[in-house]
Amino acid sequence: MRYEVTQVGRVESPLYDRDQAPRQGDEGSPDAWVVVADEYADAVADVAVGEDVLLLTWFDRAARDVHVVHPRGDVTRTALGVFSTRSPDRPNPIGLHRVTVREIHGTRLLVSNLEALDGTPVLDIKPVLGAVQER
Amino acid sequence: MRYEVTQVGRVESPLYDRDQAPRQGDEGSPDAWVVVADEYADAVADVAVGEDVLLLTWFDRAARDVHVVHPRGDVTRTALGVFSTRSPDRPNPIGLHRVTVREIHGTRLLVSNLEALDGTPVLDIKPVLGAVQER
Repeated sequence: MRYEVTQVGRVESPLYDRDQAPRQGDEGSPDAWVVVADEYADAVADVAVGEDVLLLTWFDRAARDVHVVHPRGDVTRTALGVFSTRSPDRPNPIGLHRVTVREIHGTRLLVSNLEALDGTPVLDIKPVLGAVQER
Repeated sequence: MRYEVTQVGRVESPLYDRDQAPRQGDEGSPDAWVVVADEYADAVADVAVGEDVLLLTWFDRAARDVHVVHPRGDVTRTALGVFSTRSPDRPNPIGLHRVTVREIHGTRLLVSNLEALDGTPVLDIKPVLGAVQER
């Protein structure tokens, strides 16, 4: 079975290629903008400055036929199945990023700790779950 | 822009409808099986018993045109944009579940803390990220 995902926004970042990008968001990423499309203004309206959120992206430059990789591209490390790695190369190249919202201008969110490349499509934003009694 | 996701497995669970399912995995979910398709056996081969993993699913019974919801279906609570909630009803109904792997038989993983319904498509499995030096 196949399903269609739709782009709800995109990343604006000074990162332009994979060689330049950190391996994970907390390994030296520059601040980046998450630009949500106007038609989803109501869906994003309650996201607030200072929150940590989970961003789901689509790694549009990834290879989807890769099942096994050397972690972090290091060929001296034992190859692992991609479901045990965060490689962007995987059957469904969905990126999962925990980022902090630093500023909001309309539907544009300035976030820290995002290693996604400029132009990366955004699929979803989710809150981080707190303790059960806070939900 | 639209992209196609492909099902890499499915959930087998005693949960059959949304009214019966807990709101989140850690709110009383029964154990469930994640059945990975044989063609992804190499991708899942390094997942081990005892690990916590992040499971990405496709909520195939969700409404994709919903942008605003009452949290946890409680109409006495202020409606929120779906990007501030974990509602399955959202533009891209991708479920994110932190589960614990309890048993493995071939490409079948028995997991705890999964609130997804029986038959829910699985899109991806990712490791939980540890400290930077452990990556």
